[in-house]
Amino acid sequence: MIGAGQLARMSVAPAAALGVNLLLLANNAQESGAQITNHVVGDYKDLETVRAFSRKCDVITFEHELIPLSIVKALEADGVVVRPSSASFIFSQDKAAMRERLSNFPSPKNAVVTKAEEVREFPVIAKAISGGYDGRGVWKINSQTELAAVLKEVGKVLIEELIDFDYEIAVMVARSPHGQATTWAPTQTIQRDGICVMTITPAPQLSNDLSEKAQRLALDIANEIGVIGVMAVEIFVKGQELFINELAMRPHNSGHWTIEGSLTSQFEQHLRAVLDLPLGNPQMTAPIAVMGNILGGDKEDMYRPYLHLMARTPELKFHHYKKEVRPGRKIGHVNLLGDNLLELTQEVQHALDYMSGEIDE
Amino acid sequence: MIGAGQLARMSVAPAAALGVNLLLLANNAQESGAQITNHVVGDYKDLETVRAFSRKCDVITFEHELIPLSIVKALEADGVVVRPSSASFIFSQDKAAMRERLSNFPSPKNAVVTKAEEVREFPVIAKAISGGYDGRGVWKINSQTELAAVLKEVGKVLIEELIDFDYEIAVMVARSPHGQATTWAPTQTIQRDGICVMTITPAPQLSNDLSEKAQRLALDIANEIGVIGVMAVEIFVKGQELFINELAMRPHNSGHWTIEGSLTSQFEQHLRAVLDLPLGNPQMTAPIAVMGNILGGDKEDMYRPYLHLMARTPELKFHHYKKEVRPGRKIGHVNLLGDNLLELTQEVQHALDYMSGEIDE
Repeated sequence: MIGAGQLARMSVAPAAALGVNLLLLANNAQESGAQITNHVVGDYKDLETVRAFSRKCDVITFEHELIPLSIVKALEADGVVVRPSSASFIFSQDKAAMRERLSNFPSPKNAVVTKAEEVREFPVIAKAISGGYDGRGVWKINSQTELAAVLKEVGKVLIEELIDFDYEIAVMVARSPHGQATTWAPTQTIQRDGICVMTITPAPQLSNDLSEKAQRLALDIANEIGVIGVMAVEIFVKGQELFINELAMRPHNSGHWTIEGSLTSQFEQHLRAVLDLPLGNPQMTAPIAVMGNILGGDKEDMYRPYLHLMARTPELKFHHYKKEVRPGRKIGHVNLLGDNLLELTQEVQHALDYMSGEIDE
Repeated sequence: MIGAGQLARMSVAPAAALGVNLLLLANNAQESGAQITNHVVGDYKDLETVRAFSRKCDVITFEHELIPLSIVKALEADGVVVRPSSASFIFSQDKAAMRERLSNFPSPKNAVVTKAEEVREFPVIAKAISGGYDGRGVWKINSQTELAAVLKEVGKVLIEELIDFDYEIAVMVARSPHGQATTWAPTQTIQRDGICVMTITPAPQLSNDLSEKAQRLALDIANEIGVIGVMAVEIFVKGQELFINELAMRPHNSGHWTIEGSLTSQFEQHLRAVLDLPLGNPQMTAPIAVMGNILGGDKEDMYRPYLHLMARTPELKFHHYKKEVRPGRKIGHVNLLGDNLLELTQEVQHALDYMSGEIDE
């Protein structure tokens, strides 16, 4: 696995259970995943480093989109099995290519723009073609002046129609080389300042019809671009309409609830898919699963709030990434399962406020 | 953690989630747990080795009972926090001491014997005072001649009344330094040739009254001997009577179903307990959990049956230990959750037969 962050860390448990020898390519030994399992330290932007790493592996996969596509292609030319392949992976790296490829799927109107004059109606959304995440590389643009300022910085942007959506969902989908594919129940993602803070599964406001339509859409996209492994399809919901927002071809924050909330977690399913093993059953283990992202606050030491929450809510499942605490940084998440939506969201919100220091001890 | 077998391997997932830095003392780097996580290679029978290891740790715990008690005591004298402590741990190492200490709890009649003439009524059970497991170190004895032969080999045995039990159960219990304690639903353990092949939770023939009585018994024993961590209490059930069979002070095969079958697995609870964190909720995640031990068969390569089973039963959860395959050796287990006892046991039995090669492909 190229990358050794928290997604790699959370892949260790299913790899151990499935009997898969997981090896990470880490930037350094202190990374979240590298702290706990076998890894090689090296630069994923260096072809010879990645080549040497790939010689130790039967299959190469990713936990982030940052590896240059040229390296993925070079590995493929060497005969290395890379999943997802460069032919799919490009659509999670290049937002313009994704929009073009999925032009027959429901999408916001969009165009690639290099000059501010090309856009006449505002507001619009401008996105960096590649590299953005957690609200970075995405701007709401109200005028040609604002657009010109962004273009001066990044040269070229993807301009998208601003969808006045009711809410956002994500559908996690997994697809194997055989074309076997599964989806999990659609997840509502709740953002604050462009960062996902909570997810609720199944998305509570989504009708059964729209839920099926969203899952069908994710399966169709997976098939269309031939992705192998797990993919997140982020979708805006407006009335009865769905609009594709983003794709991520790896386990994704929107699927963290699956660790306890599904018979097969996204991390297990990703390993099954990229290793061409039959996929597991993605059925939920409880009626509702609520996930909350723990964001770093001002305090480095979270031991006391941690003890408090463990004692208060013995069914709360913690997932610590052991990353250095920085304000606003995702340093862990909690999952809670049950059948009472209000209670679950309140309890998770309490945990998040407590961990980030917004409730005084 | 002293030891790096499959119990250590299965502790990696909850350690990662809880943010606990788990370090193993392994016999060699090929051991099940050492394959996948941080470890030191060294001999747990050598005091200086264990001392050096303990200087890297805040708390020492065990995944087996083989470490000499003198070493545990020496660590304690050094001021190392060892959980469970030597004062408890002795009762999982020394069966005679356990019987004596628990003489006020329901037990088979028993006596320590060095001469065959001391026993007049047969059949009886003879047990090695320490070191036995999976049927090793336990003999059914029909005559003084047979007993004499065993005594010639081992010098001293614990003789126990042969209980003509209806079935066997195990109650897993966890206890923290604060004295907080939890039990899981009692598990029926099904043995073949002295080796556990399947467990069913909750024990299907156990009445609610007896289930409560068995859990109460486990809590009382945990309190009596002051155990810290997870303990298995193996119990014979005969009519409305319970008889303590064995204790194990660590995560145990009888608790493997908890990985998916409980909100808090025995591995997570053990870590919480020995680190003095509040205990998790041990509630079941489904009405019934069936666990089957995969025993090594004649074939080394289990890849094809593995693929078949994954495809046949997408909800079957595999736990591979990555140990060398030897006939009769526990090399993994499967868990299956649901509400239909017959279907679950049949499906698990099919999986076991298939993996051990008893069903031809």
